[in-house]
Amino acid sequence: MDVRVKIGQRIKHLRELSSMSQKDLAYSADLDRSYIASVENGSRNISIVNIEKIAIALNVTLKVFFTDGNFN
Amino acid sequence: MDVRVKIGQRIKHLRELSSMSQKDLAYSADLDRSYIASVENGSRNISIVNIEKIAIALNVTLKVFFTDGNFN
Repeated sequence: MDVRVKIGQRIKHLRELSSMSQKDLAYSADLDRSYIASVENGSRNISIVNIEKIAIALNVTLKVFFTDGNFN
Repeated sequence: MDVRVKIGQRIKHLRELSSMSQKDLAYSADLDRSYIASVENGSRNISIVNIEKIAIALNVTLKVFFTDGNFN
């Protein structure tokens, strides 16, 4: 599976665990809602700075973010 | 610490563990040596696609790549 798809699935999963909407996550991470949507659907090659912003907004470390079967 | 610096330190550490030069890593990951150098010194906001290329070249999964005190 393309790593962009894996990242998108992981963000969506963690976002839903936190009962956040894409709008909530976008606001917390200081990113656009349309950007969050495109990352979640696997169409963006997201940078590490934006992955970190999203991880902080989802209240997980980068280690926890990547501790998932998708990244084994 | 800036996440770009953390990523750079992690790549350099794993590269040295594998006894690879920047040139070796660049060749294996199909990236430029100058790009590897700038990532290692923390001056690049690397994308997930390039992180994955480097992790594969270093023979670690993304989970292992981010399992490090820098990312806790």
